[in-house]
Amino acid sequence: MDITFAKRAAGGSESTLHRVFVAAAAGKGVISFAGGFPNKRFFPAREIGEAAARVLAESAHEALQYSTAGGYLPLREYISRRYHEKQGLSVDPDEILITNGSQQAIDLIARVMLDEGDFAAIESPGYLGAIDALSFYRPRFLTVPMTEAGPDPDALKEALTGRDVKIFYGVPNFQNPTGISYSANRRREVAEIIQSGNTLFIEDNPYGELRFIGEPLPSIKGVLGPQGVLLGSFSKIVAPGLRIGWICADRPIMKRLVAAKHAADLHTDIFIQHVLFRYVTACDIDEHIKEIREVYGNHRNAMIRMIEEYFPPEVGFTRPEGGLFLWMTLPEGVSSMDLFECALEAGVVVVPGAAFYPGGNGGGNAVRLNFSGVDEDEIDVGMRVLAGAVRKMTG
Amino acid sequence: MDITFAKRAAGGSESTLHRVFVAAAAGKGVISFAGGFPNKRFFPAREIGEAAARVLAESAHEALQYSTAGGYLPLREYISRRYHEKQGLSVDPDEILITNGSQQAIDLIARVMLDEGDFAAIESPGYLGAIDALSFYRPRFLTVPMTEAGPDPDALKEALTGRDVKIFYGVPNFQNPTGISYSANRRREVAEIIQSGNTLFIEDNPYGELRFIGEPLPSIKGVLGPQGVLLGSFSKIVAPGLRIGWICADRPIMKRLVAAKHAADLHTDIFIQHVLFRYVTACDIDEHIKEIREVYGNHRNAMIRMIEEYFPPEVGFTRPEGGLFLWMTLPEGVSSMDLFECALEAGVVVVPGAAFYPGGNGGGNAVRLNFSGVDEDEIDVGMRVLAGAVRKMTG
Repeated sequence: MDITFAKRAAGGSESTLHRVFVAAAAGKGVISFAGGFPNKRFFPAREIGEAAARVLAESAHEALQYSTAGGYLPLREYISRRYHEKQGLSVDPDEILITNGSQQAIDLIARVMLDEGDFAAIESPGYLGAIDALSFYRPRFLTVPMTEAGPDPDALKEALTGRDVKIFYGVPNFQNPTGISYSANRRREVAEIIQSGNTLFIEDNPYGELRFIGEPLPSIKGVLGPQGVLLGSFSKIVAPGLRIGWICADRPIMKRLVAAKHAADLHTDIFIQHVLFRYVTACDIDEHIKEIREVYGNHRNAMIRMIEEYFPPEVGFTRPEGGLFLWMTLPEGVSSMDLFECALEAGVVVVPGAAFYPGGNGGGNAVRLNFSGVDEDEIDVGMRVLAGAVRKMTG
Repeated sequence: MDITFAKRAAGGSESTLHRVFVAAAAGKGVISFAGGFPNKRFFPAREIGEAAARVLAESAHEALQYSTAGGYLPLREYISRRYHEKQGLSVDPDEILITNGSQQAIDLIARVMLDEGDFAAIESPGYLGAIDALSFYRPRFLTVPMTEAGPDPDALKEALTGRDVKIFYGVPNFQNPTGISYSANRRREVAEIIQSGNTLFIEDNPYGELRFIGEPLPSIKGVLGPQGVLLGSFSKIVAPGLRIGWICADRPIMKRLVAAKHAADLHTDIFIQHVLFRYVTACDIDEHIKEIREVYGNHRNAMIRMIEEYFPPEVGFTRPEGGLFLWMTLPEGVSSMDLFECALEAGVVVVPGAAFYPGGNGGGNAVRLNFSGVDEDEIDVGMRVLAGAVRKMTG
């Protein structure tokens, strides 16, 4: 017997993201700045329990049976209304597909867009879950460096010129991993560059509602129309364990996404879609979001304060206006892989920068730090550990 | 703007299975023999509600947070124990991956096994969900005709000889769509043929616990070891809306499946995995299975009785020993697509046989009939409608 695997699985190694998750989830007593974990203290467990009880009392026959691939219509209508009310965006419920978190959204888009060898552009550094998902379709990656105001427009233009680039994946609000947001001006520039070609823009927005500073900026898909798809998720504002995200896409793409979703797993857990709908309509989700936004904002401030206080001044870092992450750049010559190993020894987990570059080509002296999943006293202990390690490594 | 899709999505049509599901789920007042719907009257809604309440009271932090790709370990341990107790099969919990129903199991296996143009063998007629899932990977299909005792061994041997066939997908117990089970002897023959080459056998077993007649027969993976993967599901014995299935695979395949699962959607809804574990350990699931087995067995008997009573004698049909389906063959020259349309007009839904052949090449005079999702009075009304339509079409 000699089983041979598909080329896309030939390597056989577990994904980088998976290894980081395992490390992050592994030990009790570990302080984790890895992962993109929301703070578990704020999960609305009681409200979800009440919603579940009502769904089972009133709609069990529908909520436990097979359903259709697009997702629970009342939930899609709710998402549509919320886009309209919060952002003035007009998205028809039929242009929304419920997915197993945004991770599946990225996978399904790749599935309908990418043939092997196609060009796929991403931010650099970029979201490692997207790199993982896209990699399975064996594209040629093009990387567009992030500046303080979003992807470098000249680099983006150059990447998309003279070749057929199928997709550009970006996170305009509080980017993963850097925490950077595209400025209003940069959003316009990016939209113009996209519109001058045939590339589909994948606008991932899991953190948009978690803004601590400044005013919300408009969705780029709102400008691009059918040339953009917009991803959303309940993972960061309700609970990630439920695995509910969505894709907004215009009909020609949507009908292909629905067929792909159906082939991939028929549909997303319909019981949980009912439960989420009950929860968001019965409770004040804005009040809940306000609460976690305040907490994460305080964590972000604490982390920045501690970097300034504990770390050598050569350490650089971003000052995110929202979201879950900041990006720390170590002094030249200090390896973030060494820091990862050293911190892990001391019970602190970070994600080394290389995870955010296809093939690990970059980020050698940077790390991503999550401030949402930990509490302030843990941030204090963890940042002292990291600072000590950095000081040791810089001599 | 001119967006171009991947070749695998170029057709853009919704899947056959999806269209059937939509038709089946569409109207109230429709009698559906389509789909593979369990009977909603027997969903354990109260018990699931109690399990959900306990999970949220006791383990909300864990059950609502991100988790790892493989699935909830206590649930995998439960599945492992059950295999040992019920079938004497030895499957390590680390050789079990929790998926979003068996549909995702098939997709993930295809993802790690199939390059475009690879040969994939399936039963003929075969499960349309598998045809849908595999089709996205653009294999060359080989079809192995079903006989009354399972796939024709000579045809299987011929299909697997002289070319590199990556997978053979089959449903040994109460096959979808025919209801046929592989005989004990045929299981041995199939295993021997598989073992003489390098093909991976995908043994899908969603209905195995729903046997009405005769004694359970052994799993083929139990004989094949690493050359087989075994799929299971809670969809038919608990509730399909929860989307919980699994794959048993040996480590070289499993590590690739786990990486593929992680890239596809990080992990399956962990809250529901906790809930299911609570449910299966707190309640007597064997008693529940016994109850639905009796009901479905009665439905199967009623449907067969009505075929004998209402239909012209030229109509052929299988006599399944378990499961959810039987397969009806219409008189020569009677089109099952015409019957589908005609029955739909009268509020009765069946799946035309063509859905179970890649490219729709076959089954022109056969239909699949589901007897689990309907009640006996509906079976009576629906079968009279179908019989009337058949009599009209045969003149």
